[in-house]
Amino acid sequence: MLRKNRLFTPGPTPLLPAAQTAMASFTAHHRTADFRALFQRVLVDMKEFIGTKNDVLVLACSGTGVMEASVSNLTSPGDKVLVLTAGKFGERWTGLAKAFGCNVDVLSAPYGETFSLTDIRARLTPDVRAVFVQATESSTGARHDVEGIAKIVGAQQDTLLVVDAITGLGTTHLDVDGWGVDVIIGGSQKALMMPPGLGYCAVSERAWQRMEKTSSPRYYFDLRKERKSAAKGETAYTPATSLFAALGAALEFIRGMGNGNLAQGRETLVNNAELCAEMTRAGAKALGLKLYASSPAAALTAISSPDGIDSGKIVKEFREAFDAVVANGQGEMKGKLFRIAHIGYYDYLDTIGILAALEHVLARTTARTADYGAAVKAAQEVYARSLTEKRQLVGV
Amino acid sequence: MLRKNRLFTPGPTPLLPAAQTAMASFTAHHRTADFRALFQRVLVDMKEFIGTKNDVLVLACSGTGVMEASVSNLTSPGDKVLVLTAGKFGERWTGLAKAFGCNVDVLSAPYGETFSLTDIRARLTPDVRAVFVQATESSTGARHDVEGIAKIVGAQQDTLLVVDAITGLGTTHLDVDGWGVDVIIGGSQKALMMPPGLGYCAVSERAWQRMEKTSSPRYYFDLRKERKSAAKGETAYTPATSLFAALGAALEFIRGMGNGNLAQGRETLVNNAELCAEMTRAGAKALGLKLYASSPAAALTAISSPDGIDSGKIVKEFREAFDAVVANGQGEMKGKLFRIAHIGYYDYLDTIGILAALEHVLARTTARTADYGAAVKAAQEVYARSLTEKRQLVGV
Repeated sequence: MLRKNRLFTPGPTPLLPAAQTAMASFTAHHRTADFRALFQRVLVDMKEFIGTKNDVLVLACSGTGVMEASVSNLTSPGDKVLVLTAGKFGERWTGLAKAFGCNVDVLSAPYGETFSLTDIRARLTPDVRAVFVQATESSTGARHDVEGIAKIVGAQQDTLLVVDAITGLGTTHLDVDGWGVDVIIGGSQKALMMPPGLGYCAVSERAWQRMEKTSSPRYYFDLRKERKSAAKGETAYTPATSLFAALGAALEFIRGMGNGNLAQGRETLVNNAELCAEMTRAGAKALGLKLYASSPAAALTAISSPDGIDSGKIVKEFREAFDAVVANGQGEMKGKLFRIAHIGYYDYLDTIGILAALEHVLARTTARTADYGAAVKAAQEVYARSLTEKRQLVGV
Repeated sequence: MLRKNRLFTPGPTPLLPAAQTAMASFTAHHRTADFRALFQRVLVDMKEFIGTKNDVLVLACSGTGVMEASVSNLTSPGDKVLVLTAGKFGERWTGLAKAFGCNVDVLSAPYGETFSLTDIRARLTPDVRAVFVQATESSTGARHDVEGIAKIVGAQQDTLLVVDAITGLGTTHLDVDGWGVDVIIGGSQKALMMPPGLGYCAVSERAWQRMEKTSSPRYYFDLRKERKSAAKGETAYTPATSLFAALGAALEFIRGMGNGNLAQGRETLVNNAELCAEMTRAGAKALGLKLYASSPAAALTAISSPDGIDSGKIVKEFREAFDAVVANGQGEMKGKLFRIAHIGYYDYLDTIGILAALEHVLARTTARTADYGAAVKAAQEVYARSLTEKRQLVGV
């Protein structure tokens, strides 16, 4: 049977056709009025997309580049920082903070779990210069309580809160300014429905002030320099122009999802991811599968591999039978779970399709007798209920 | 929920991404070596795709344009022709033949049915100059027995057989040369997975000879002129260059489906359509729906609307709830059936998705209680059986 290559990975995610077209046709030089107009419009729109009044920067790098920028710009060697980690991306914070010579205190939760706010409160001494955390941990599918964490960190005088929301932005409700998140970080290849290549962040006034006093080495990722250039309508270094064109198109699409309002469009995206996730969780449970995360994110559903089955076999069968790319576990969870993403450009047919495919994949990789239609039926019931609950949002 | 616009119509069909890209980037002038190379390669490849040694022409027009060309080039006013009609596209043959002054004998079968070969044999007197028929009747989803018809027509000295295979090519097995089809007609927006705008035909030596003696008026559609130009590597009039680029890319994709062999790729496409159709028929039956066509084509499945329900309501609900475009009945069947296509670029996830969507659509447009998963389960069983039967073909 013909197989279309379809990404169900938590980034890169399926591309928005309008972004592909915009990207393919854009050819303007970056030091021109045309690019400047695009660039300035995108920076304004990104504030609305993120939901912040803080300055937003968009850099030519992956999300990890902006994670590095938040460490190198906000800390000096020897600074005490608190890293909250419950997965591979939490561990990336630890690696980054250590690379820049921070005195790193690590508060870990087991993979698949999230943090106890009491534990965080206990660890958060006044000398902690910054707290680093994920909004959603892509390696385990767990959602962390950013609002709760922000409340605790906000009670401190000199502690900045840095949130990696690379998979979180557009899949989970975040009130960046209301909660007082100092730096929030995103990447293009997630809910923005475009290819990898752009990282972005919104930076609070407190964080900008901190940068004046820190001494960690930075050059390409010097956010102050980038901010000065942005004020003049340009980037410090050569921008990824075609990706800016894609970003412009993606933001217009999201605005359309919100009936002309970008913030509402982002909420529509979040609600869409939540419905896809709820359908997928119901489908997986109907097949007797165990969900991995205790507080599951809408960004993705991590499903434990049935006993004795390497999840790599499941991932491989999805690929070989359907050309559908789902993600294996990462780090210590490799082989133990597989992950189906709901970030960005997914609809009903995608969600039902991958669940139906899962039924064949399980039948072919395990000894179980296929109960065809069981996962789909459970997901359909979630969808039908969402209609009667009037949770259904105007589509685009 | 986010809704992706998806065509399940029997043309236009979903676009192949590689064809979209090729089309968007092609800019060459048509009287250049670059275009000539593309044009000549496409004409050779089209022979292999159609499965013929006859000359193939590709024109800037819809399929109807090539239907007209076959009438205007092969008949003179007053010529007796036999039209076999069992639906809206059969009626188009009648309209065309009358427009060019033919003496038209019409053999009709009821909508949804096909012809009795005995009836055809009885009507086919030696003075019939041409027989016009569809391979598959898109308005009803019926498949006609082209092989059987060709055998009867082939027994005559001076009767040409003209087959509209616009939805048939790439969805049903056809042996053009083996069966002796004089003119076979196709369109770009079908199994070739590209937009409308190109019509094509393969013309037998007998048919070329006929053209020397016919007197119906033709100019743009003068196939002899087009053939002479093609021999020099060009078209008589300005070709739709970007669509040729898309066609080149589509043919490469189909070659890939056949592991380097275009004819095998076409068979893979046909088998794919057959599996999609079989899944869809099983799904519809599982919901207690009635299939409309007695000899169903793999190109599309025509499903009778449940009693008392205007099929327009079903089509509208598909569109509004899922942005999925299925086709209403045409002509006298409008309001009485809906049609789901399987032509070209469809895979497992598409097929399962539209069946799952159908379950919601029926629940919302009829009084029936939804039996979620029933259609999907039946389709999954067909798919699973196809694997064990080794009917499963290498995908792409």
